[in-house]
Amino acid sequence: MSDAREGAPRKRGRPARTDAGDGPGARERILTAARAEFAEHGYDKASIRGIAKGAGVDPALVHHYFGPKEKIFGAAVEVAFAPALEAQDIVSVGGLETIGERLTRFILGVWEDPVTREPLLAIVRSAVANETAAAVFRDLVTMRLMVRVAGELDVPEPRLRSELAAAQLVGVTLLRHVIKVEPLASADLDEVIAMVAPVVQRHLTED
Amino acid sequence: MSDAREGAPRKRGRPARTDAGDGPGARERILTAARAEFAEHGYDKASIRGIAKGAGVDPALVHHYFGPKEKIFGAAVEVAFAPALEAQDIVSVGGLETIGERLTRFILGVWEDPVTREPLLAIVRSAVANETAAAVFRDLVTMRLMVRVAGELDVPEPRLRSELAAAQLVGVTLLRHVIKVEPLASADLDEVIAMVAPVVQRHLTED
Repeated sequence: MSDAREGAPRKRGRPARTDAGDGPGARERILTAARAEFAEHGYDKASIRGIAKGAGVDPALVHHYFGPKEKIFGAAVEVAFAPALEAQDIVSVGGLETIGERLTRFILGVWEDPVTREPLLAIVRSAVANETAAAVFRDLVTMRLMVRVAGELDVPEPRLRSELAAAQLVGVTLLRHVIKVEPLASADLDEVIAMVAPVVQRHLTED
Repeated sequence: MSDAREGAPRKRGRPARTDAGDGPGARERILTAARAEFAEHGYDKASIRGIAKGAGVDPALVHHYFGPKEKIFGAAVEVAFAPALEAQDIVSVGGLETIGERLTRFILGVWEDPVTREPLLAIVRSAVANETAAAVFRDLVTMRLMVRVAGELDVPEPRLRSELAAAQLVGVTLLRHVIKVEPLASADLDEVIAMVAPVVQRHLTED
């Protein structure tokens, strides 16, 4: 990434102390460092000290901004899922008769790009391994994403149906990107979408 | 469980040394202890010492039977998935036109019982968090279970289709039993099966 070069003066050794305090970019740097820390060490082993070090700030500042670890995790999840939380647009941008294809393409697409995949992977790993992280994941993501999708549906039990559709998409991303089962892991994205979208569509709109 | 009472004489304090060696039950005790250890601590933090302690044997005996940690994990996975690995019977016991319902009921059913759920949970948590555990999970389970199911199918790309069906089932168990998303987590099992089975059927047999 060419960004690395732009940031070069701050890259070597200790970050400049003037930039390490309550600067305008500190909050953002802490969240970026938090995602890296959760991705590398998992929720249990991730530490505020490690996050602070990654962000080039004092641990007290991390606590000042976000509080305890689960709050930092929640904030990191929220930022990482920001595109997914905009899925309302994916829903309302077209008719219900093609919602399966749009939602499938969107969710699987977010996982296809290594840059957006990494924080998602960190969150999924943390949520699977740790009860606190699972609760954060559940409340933030499912309440905000699923409820929105379900709100658009005109079927009985829209919440349950949107969760079963989500289960199909979560399962595909898990087997494709985490467990890396072949041939799914190497299959062409468009082919996977073509096979998964009708199923998501069925969950969401068909009786 | 009433089994605890039957084993009571060995339950308190240090296990009797005469029973702690290369006895006929040692191998089985080590596998049981290994599943408990992986479930409680996850793959990374699980230790041969901890497994040996749980089984009431010397760590050297654990290594003697199974070798390094990933081999113990592989053996524990194999035993835990033994019912699932018999899914061949689930497949061949009836016609292809109802395979979705049989497979869905079987897989979701295994996760419904806390006794069979616990080792599966340990394995899934380990496989999601650790690359070595993911490789073991992938090779043992998917190669042995998916390939069998795929072998019965009469459609193009049977492997990919069986994996997409598995993705639906994995996603449902993950959201229901690990992330515990409501209403899915508390939904009646038969209702969930009724909504998921047609989708699994579609993946496996419909063009």
